Amino acid sequence: MKCYRLDPGHGLAGLTLDERDVPEPGPGQVLVRIRANSLGFRDLMVLDGNYPLPISPGVVPGCEGAGEVVAVGDGVNRVRPGDRVAATVFPRWLDGPFIRDNAAQLGTMIDGVLTEYAVFGEDAVVPVPAHLSFEEAATLPLAAVTAWHALSAGGPPRPGSTVLTLGSGGVSLFVLQFAKLAGARVIVTTSSPVKAERLRALGADAVIDYREDPQWSQKVLDLTGGRGADRVVDATGPLEQSLKSVAASGDLAFVGYWLSGAEGARPVDPAALFSAGAVLNRIATGSRAHFTELTRAVELHRLRPVIDREFPFEKVPDAFEYCASGGGFGKIVISHS
Amino acid sequence: MKCYRLDPGHGLAGLTLDERDVPEPGPGQVLVRIRANSLGFRDLMVLDGNYPLPISPGVVPGCEGAGEVVAVGDGVNRVRPGDRVAATVFPRWLDGPFIRDNAAQLGTMIDGVLTEYAVFGEDAVVPVPAHLSFEEAATLPLAAVTAWHALSAGGPPRPGSTVLTLGSGGVSLFVLQFAKLAGARVIVTTSSPVKAERLRALGADAVIDYREDPQWSQKVLDLTGGRGADRVVDATGPLEQSLKSVAASGDLAFVGYWLSGAEGARPVDPAALFSAGAVLNRIATGSRAHFTELTRAVELHRLRPVIDREFPFEKVPDAFEYCASGGGFGKIVISHS
Amino acid sequence: MKCYRLDPGHGLAGLTLDERDVPEPGPGQVLVRIRANSLGFRDLMVLDGNYPLPISPGVVPGCEGAGEVVAVGDGVNRVRPGDRVAATVFPRWLDGPFIRDNAAQLGTMIDGVLTEYAVFGEDAVVPVPAHLSFEEAATLPLAAVTAWHALSAGGPPRPGSTVLTLGSGGVSLFVLQFAKLAGARVIVTTSSPVKAERLRALGADAVIDYREDPQWSQKVLDLTGGRGADRVVDATGPLEQSLKSVAASGDLAFVGYWLSGAEGARPVDPAALFSAGAVLNRIATGSRAHFTELTRAVELHRLRPVIDREFPFEKVPDAFEYCASGGGFGKIVISHS
Amino acid sequence: MKCYRLDPGHGLAGLTLDERDVPEPGPGQVLVRIRANSLGFRDLMVLDGNYPLPISPGVVPGCEGAGEVVAVGDGVNRVRPGDRVAATVFPRWLDGPFIRDNAAQLGTMIDGVLTEYAVFGEDAVVPVPAHLSFEEAATLPLAAVTAWHALSAGGPPRPGSTVLTLGSGGVSLFVLQFAKLAGARVIVTTSSPVKAERLRALGADAVIDYREDPQWSQKVLDLTGGRGADRVVDATGPLEQSLKSVAASGDLAFVGYWLSGAEGARPVDPAALFSAGAVLNRIATGSRAHFTELTRAVELHRLRPVIDREFPFEKVPDAFEYCASGGGFGKIVISHS
Repeated sequence: MKCYRLDPGHGLAGLTLDERDVPEPGPGQVLVRIRANSLGFRDLMVLDGNYPLPISPGVVPGCEGAGEVVAVGDGVNRVRPGDRVAATVFPRWLDGPFIRDNAAQLGTMIDGVLTEYAVFGEDAVVPVPAHLSFEEAATLPLAAVTAWHALSAGGPPRPGSTVLTLGSGGVSLFVLQFAKLAGARVIVTTSSPVKAERLRALGADAVIDYREDPQWSQKVLDLTGGRGADRVVDATGPLEQSLKSVAASGDLAFVGYWLSGAEGARPVDPAALFSAGAVLNRIATGSRAHFTELTRAVELHRLRPVIDREFPFEKVPDAFEYCASGGGFGKIVISHS
Repeated sequence: MKCYRLDPGHGLAGLTLDERDVPEPGPGQVLVRIRANSLGFRDLMVLDGNYPLPISPGVVPGCEGAGEVVAVGDGVNRVRPGDRVAATVFPRWLDGPFIRDNAAQLGTMIDGVLTEYAVFGEDAVVPVPAHLSFEEAATLPLAAVTAWHALSAGGPPRPGSTVLTLGSGGVSLFVLQFAKLAGARVIVTTSSPVKAERLRALGADAVIDYREDPQWSQKVLDLTGGRGADRVVDATGPLEQSLKSVAASGDLAFVGYWLSGAEGARPVDPAALFSAGAVLNRIATGSRAHFTELTRAVELHRLRPVIDREFPFEKVPDAFEYCASGGGFGKIVISHS
Repeated sequence: MKCYRLDPGHGLAGLTLDERDVPEPGPGQVLVRIRANSLGFRDLMVLDGNYPLPISPGVVPGCEGAGEVVAVGDGVNRVRPGDRVAATVFPRWLDGPFIRDNAAQLGTMIDGVLTEYAVFGEDAVVPVPAHLSFEEAATLPLAAVTAWHALSAGGPPRPGSTVLTLGSGGVSLFVLQFAKLAGARVIVTTSSPVKAERLRALGADAVIDYREDPQWSQKVLDLTGGRGADRVVDATGPLEQSLKSVAASGDLAFVGYWLSGAEGARPVDPAALFSAGAVLNRIATGSRAHFTELTRAVELHRLRPVIDREFPFEKVPDAFEYCASGGGFGKIVISHS
Repeated sequence: MKCYRLDPGHGLAGLTLDERDVPEPGPGQVLVRIRANSLGFRDLMVLDGNYPLPISPGVVPGCEGAGEVVAVGDGVNRVRPGDRVAATVFPRWLDGPFIRDNAAQLGTMIDGVLTEYAVFGEDAVVPVPAHLSFEEAATLPLAAVTAWHALSAGGPPRPGSTVLTLGSGGVSLFVLQFAKLAGARVIVTTSSPVKAERLRALGADAVIDYREDPQWSQKVLDLTGGRGADRVVDATGPLEQSLKSVAASGDLAFVGYWLSGAEGARPVDPAALFSAGAVLNRIATGSRAHFTELTRAVELHRLRPVIDREFPFEKVPDAFEYCASGGGFGKIVISHS
């Protein structure tokens, strides 16, 4: 079988396509033939060595993958051969809050999913809705789980409440889609009229051009009769406008390793932090339980993830280059046709 | 002005239409011209003396009313003359859990709203959505607040989760409507094919005929792949089938004074209680905060309450008789045209 | 090695002491030399075939055990040989609410701990505080975890709140001890003056003789200025007095399979359920996270479990007979010295 | 009667002692003879015009006061003449989360308690424990309520968990005392060996000298086996060390208007915010419900607030000067002997 391997810190130059034996599932494990992957900025950070966690040399990169169970080890009773599944980014984080003991994540310390076959513990894969293609299912493990977790921290949004999400990245689009399912009114920021149109088509009730007005939090207040948004998901920064946009006793979830040292990660004014009065939740992906919950919503509402562009498995480097160029709308996926 | 008064325990014979002076609002109070009311089984129990709480002799009955603010006392800053408002059933229960200090409720210990004018503390009225008539707004204070509270206890239902509600009473219809707004799949029970059709038209994903199958909890399990409903709202009893219908770690809200001694209130099998594994919440109406939250959902989604039949203010006794005959679909309202 | 095996439904006659090979830990597994066990009514129900869950024929019984890790399989990094650990009753329930996928429990469907050696997944053992003997540590997995969970459902008791616990069984004693650590005032029921004395010595602020006054809930109300207890843990039944003892918006946790068909499990009056106004939580043991949390409290406060009597491993049948005779105070333990 | 009045923004020069008529309680109101007050940095900010909220010219300053009910208006049933009470800082914030409608606070927009008599709504006073002097009771409304709220946001600390609190200001001392009641292990920072001794006497399990080691978060990690503190209450800043001290999935409550523009309020590194992984709660005092809860803890445990120094009512300016000089240990109180 083929799999990518990574010598981290060298960008695309550190990525090689390797040949290995197909692994065998041990007790409690399942073998999955990966059929699709998804890529994003997190993966670019891993390639470039900017990711704030250690990367094992030679690791198989990639944290989002979906495929078909082809074999199971002894004692496995949650999935069967033939099941269509996606892998969880944190294989040991099953439920409850994140604890350090469950910190191992695909594609950094442990092998990820840019491979033709992979072995997982049976708890580390989640069945995916039947109406989704493998390509669509591959968009869920990081972006959709993060969005679901961000919206859930503090309880799901109430019908009639206002959710603000920033930009049109992978997490933000899922926040928009999930918040609409929950009956919320959704405000989104963007600087592109074309994207604004697409956001409205996905259900956005209001779109704010953040470039036109860098102090756009005032627009959020205007749109909410001065109350502010009940729930803010900030996956882009800067936090300051989010803090000024959130309602007293609202919730602000901030997402994304961009915060941990990225260019443009501006210091946060403590006065803005204090004035906000919101509960602040740092979100880093989510648990198997979050993933399972969201698949039920996706299934009931036959929700379809937004895919920007597909690349074949052999063209993963091209996909990374495309990702680095930015500017798309939706997830970049890899198809192992 | 005219108002009804009640000599409790004598049914309709205890109800008289009285003439009084229009009251004046004191500091922090508002005077409301009542424009519509709503009636239900709770009010019948009050008339009949079956209500499990003390009734003040001569009390103005009625707990659901909506109208227009016509005057305000000193220091009032939350509402203004001309505002369209509904009164809260528990005038002092503003937020947080119910405490005994806030137990006074309209139409039992203290005067209610079957009157042309009434005075309330400014915190005891809630502005109502502009798209609702006064008749529609008058359905909210008891039935809709109870439904919203029942669905909120334990956090709002998640999109994709399953909500079960029993029958087509006032609370149950609002549970159905609110749960659909929240993106849930909704199962409802009824024994009438005609009502089944109307429930489906309101969005019910599945309707179970409980008369056809008294052990209908099995149908709920079948409809949920054996998991059970994540959230059950039981406003009719018997609890046993609800307990068998709820998912492990689900939530079961039970509602209604029927439980407190009504004919047919069957004892609950402790084995059913134990096996359920759900969190059980007793729901008795809700707070001002619940009311305010739900108006935002009603407003955003332009939701319309289901009204069964309207009666003029002079015909309140007829409305009570109609209510006692049962069998309607939706709320019975009084219009002070 | 020696281990007990069970032919369920025959009481002690179904229990045999067997000889087996010491098992070997696979990947992710640990081998534990069991040094002590604890027994209780649950185990008697399993022997007698009254337990409401299926029992595998020939299963190794026992769900509470503590011992020493003597070997670990590949990939184990949470414990090391030499670590003193206790096994969790539900090996797969790590965190979050209980779900059916994690229903396997020691000594029923899967092999338990009345054995000299046992193999567990590394997540299914929890390090135990250094100040505890193995005998003391063996009292924790069922009784202490259940007590901790019962007190935690709805948030830990606040300092100054009132906790009511029923009787002096294993769970109840831990509830008393943990609630005192949390700064609560604790009321306990018993019918024995001797036990009343011991309960006071453990910190009980008030002891009620339930035999003297079957309507003892009135005493709880008297002791709390009419408010009722903020938190009630009922591990004995009948629920009715508990329901009448709990504060409006309090929490009532009910515990114990006795409810599921035991002699004397009386039907519950729905009026009592409704009047209570408390949140009701059914508690069945708890997760690994509950266990880990409680060990920190036990460790910080150097809390010592109450042991009634010790038996050697060869005398397990005598221990069961002693357990069946009732009347002790504290846990019955088995020592593999 | 005498009362202080404030021309804000002029420091002590704006403070005058005035003569007024004793007010009369209206319907639902109570008249309290104030017997003691407490002062702190918030009050200095109000005097100096640095407080981030509008101050009404001529307002009676002071937000912490306790006294005796001397008369009640119509319809009052929660307190009686003779009751010993303290006033809540936010008279309309009764329960639930803070909302802007309840923003009026004593001594800023509305008259405060540096007066001999004051009128309050009956919900705006809370009975105080009998074992406390008026001087002790006067320390509760701001500092103790804030501490209780900060410890409660996210649920009370569990027995065995670790609480970190910063410095020995009024809030921090109550955090220490309340956290000990809850069975937590408490770590406190200070730079004074004398205060360190007093903190240990109040129950601190560990005291860290923050001046000796500006990167003192490492010490917190060392003291907690690398986990960090489960709960951090930061009432002094800078947030950065708090963020580095809090456990993954812990809670960090930050308190104090110092953050909103005080000298030395350093910008917060977004990487520190992201790495923390804790839930962040901004705390601004608390509700009547918080106050009521804490009085039960204070009463049960006969807890005594720490008083630094007392001044007579006529010497309020001296008390402010003493307060501005800093360096004390405990609350500064005013006694209306």
